[in-house]
Amino acid sequence: MDQVLAAVDAAIPAALERLFAFLRIPSISAQPAHAPDCRRAALWARDALAEMGFSARLAETSGHPAVIASHEGAGPDAPHVLFYGHYDVQPADPLDLWETDPFEPRLVEGPRGKRIVARGAVDDKGQVVSFMEACRAHLAVKGRLPVRLTILLEGEEENGSPSLDELLTREREALRADFVLVADTNMWDFATPAITTSLRGLAAMDVRVHGPSRDLHSGLFGGIALNPIHVLTRVLGELRDAQGRIRIPGFYEGVQPPPPGELAAWAALGFDAAAFLGEVGLRHPAGEADQPPLAQLWARPTAEVNGIYGGYQGEGSKTVIPAHATAKLTFRLVAGQDPARIQDGFAQFVTAALPPDARAEFTRGGAAPGYRLPEGAPFLRAAQAALAAEFGKPAALIGSGASIPVVEAFKTRLGLDTLLAGFGLDDDRIHAPNEKFELACFHRGARAHARLLAGFAARADRVPPP
Amino acid sequence: MDQVLAAVDAAIPAALERLFAFLRIPSISAQPAHAPDCRRAALWARDALAEMGFSARLAETSGHPAVIASHEGAGPDAPHVLFYGHYDVQPADPLDLWETDPFEPRLVEGPRGKRIVARGAVDDKGQVVSFMEACRAHLAVKGRLPVRLTILLEGEEENGSPSLDELLTREREALRADFVLVADTNMWDFATPAITTSLRGLAAMDVRVHGPSRDLHSGLFGGIALNPIHVLTRVLGELRDAQGRIRIPGFYEGVQPPPPGELAAWAALGFDAAAFLGEVGLRHPAGEADQPPLAQLWARPTAEVNGIYGGYQGEGSKTVIPAHATAKLTFRLVAGQDPARIQDGFAQFVTAALPPDARAEFTRGGAAPGYRLPEGAPFLRAAQAALAAEFGKPAALIGSGASIPVVEAFKTRLGLDTLLAGFGLDDDRIHAPNEKFELACFHRGARAHARLLAGFAARADRVPPP
Repeated sequence: MDQVLAAVDAAIPAALERLFAFLRIPSISAQPAHAPDCRRAALWARDALAEMGFSARLAETSGHPAVIASHEGAGPDAPHVLFYGHYDVQPADPLDLWETDPFEPRLVEGPRGKRIVARGAVDDKGQVVSFMEACRAHLAVKGRLPVRLTILLEGEEENGSPSLDELLTREREALRADFVLVADTNMWDFATPAITTSLRGLAAMDVRVHGPSRDLHSGLFGGIALNPIHVLTRVLGELRDAQGRIRIPGFYEGVQPPPPGELAAWAALGFDAAAFLGEVGLRHPAGEADQPPLAQLWARPTAEVNGIYGGYQGEGSKTVIPAHATAKLTFRLVAGQDPARIQDGFAQFVTAALPPDARAEFTRGGAAPGYRLPEGAPFLRAAQAALAAEFGKPAALIGSGASIPVVEAFKTRLGLDTLLAGFGLDDDRIHAPNEKFELACFHRGARAHARLLAGFAARADRVPPP
Repeated sequence: MDQVLAAVDAAIPAALERLFAFLRIPSISAQPAHAPDCRRAALWARDALAEMGFSARLAETSGHPAVIASHEGAGPDAPHVLFYGHYDVQPADPLDLWETDPFEPRLVEGPRGKRIVARGAVDDKGQVVSFMEACRAHLAVKGRLPVRLTILLEGEEENGSPSLDELLTREREALRADFVLVADTNMWDFATPAITTSLRGLAAMDVRVHGPSRDLHSGLFGGIALNPIHVLTRVLGELRDAQGRIRIPGFYEGVQPPPPGELAAWAALGFDAAAFLGEVGLRHPAGEADQPPLAQLWARPTAEVNGIYGGYQGEGSKTVIPAHATAKLTFRLVAGQDPARIQDGFAQFVTAALPPDARAEFTRGGAAPGYRLPEGAPFLRAAQAALAAEFGKPAALIGSGASIPVVEAFKTRLGLDTLLAGFGLDDDRIHAPNEKFELACFHRGARAHARLLAGFAARADRVPPP
């Protein structure tokens, strides 16, 4: 292993040259004018992988092509890893806030040493190249990879992955593996690696409450006529009980508490809720009173009103009783909850609370369940050992309150669990001007990936326990 | 009296000619291009009154001029009536929905006989001329009016009366009287005259609930971060108790039940709440459960949310926790309630319900108290007798759920009560295309006004009891 790590270290200058070439391609997937650049970036990755000995090809979609590459590695009995990354990037605007050209990558001195500054530096080209460098070192030293490896690089991640389902369905055979490794996430902090073991899902739903058949004059009708804003606010106002629990029937059905070990690990992270909230002008955790702050963020579902509107919104006053009022909700879901069931439950909750003459109209939006890495999965234990060896301290096992749709898609379409272990930092300014990737993170990421690949291979029992 | 009524009857053809001349002037107060027409209409009224023997003049304001005219009538000991009307009209658009030119008045055959069709036919030129014809008949037959009379014709009523306060303050001496007579209201139905004895006032107030210092991602912050829409809906949802009573502290302070006689009279009106609500797609009275429907409309205050907004309002979903959410309220007030006190109470109610980290910002809007005609006012008893004599049945004593700001201004600025007795009908299409005034209403209105003037004069005890 030391030889492999030494090869990673020695190759850093060349690795940066390779990464910079990749970063110079403005592969902005959301902007049609950059479609040729997306294809160029896909071809760059395909060629780079082919030169390393992968069997690599473009997989065309109705949008930008994906890259699929595979390497036999240690042979048919070795664990089979599917690495997922994306070669496309966010738009670079506002351009005037960039200190240098977003597509002319540079090494800039920062408080933690040198940093790579460019659009895509960390999200996700830098993380992809970091992983490729780990493969390159294994191949250079050992002549083969310790695992069977398939690499999938998507070209539409920053544009909502419209072709992903089509791709996974069509390429199901080519993407066969034991589990997925995704490096599109962050470390806990500069010194501490992290593995994200749970993601929240999402179910969206709009409700419009109808009252009178037209807008009414609140003088001539006020008092006797039902006001749908009153109905909507009362119903939404009753969504939570005094302890902050959501009162939708069956809402918590299937919700499991995090494993005790994980809760203890979260407590050890020293998360400062007041500081976290202080950054956005708040101070007090507003979720369920009996749940610790990190559980409110990572382990508990929410019912969030993202928007509300009805009646008059202009200056001054208009004495109107509107015909309807609307709220737009999303529910953040955790593993075990059924999104359609939650949407049904919300509709039942609202409908049961309606007074005479009120009618509710529901519009269902996207729905995806939450995700939780199976406890004690062998590749998880292998990953913990590899990261601890590289960083000299255990990886933080963390959750994410947000969704990563691709993880859900791997589970649903391919039946695969996903290990999320990336080397970005929270201050990397992804999707923003002056995106950066600490050179140390790029470098240690490559070393950690080299250890991860070896660690996965060392596991004989690669099927997760029931 | 019979001679006076006969004079009214005989003059109808000439009265219509006079009214039509008045109606041909497009005195649209809201449109600056019609400012010269407003002045022309004011001059028309001034000249018409002067020809009848009034001392008449224009009273200039910072907007359109008013007309002030006075007649000594029966001398210094006679009751002194201030008649209020307005010569300005609403804009006529949408013009293509008019069957004929809105400023070319015509007599059209309708289900109740001939009707006058034009912009301003009933609101308020027709009602003003109807009153002037009553004066003309008295003057023709008796050579004098039975009361002292001051006439105030405003030119900005349809544009929010921006100069009214200025006018009442400056012309306070010229407008001295015992009470005000306003004919800008409707009959109960075609056969039944009405006196409006109460109006609701209005207090407007906006509340904005602030939460985080900026919009947040509901995945990364949802559950732990306070959502101001949740706070706003909960607070507004608690505005009413299960019986529909407003829970703002002190809200009902000073509210008096309608006089028992009036409640009985309302019951006798045969108001069909289901039919009234059925016109607008509703069926069930939505106010205080222990209040009859007409009391909900006329005698009870409301807390109405006229508008609400916060967060995302577009298509699809946006996973945002917004920084703030806003509601726009108006309170319809009844006599005895102090508007400023209600606004204070609402602010206290909201503030007391805020969770930690939430902050409420209030914007006070216009405020005017409700109005109730003093029970047993002598001019009221005189008016009841006069209307009963003309129509052969008692006048309905009704309320109005809306506000008439000028009535409030007369009370506040001049200390005068107002008798509201007009001869429009609910289907007269005021402010709408094809506005009309039934010729029978115009004619009976003039006869009723002639009786009212005589009736007022017959009262010796013209000061209302304490």
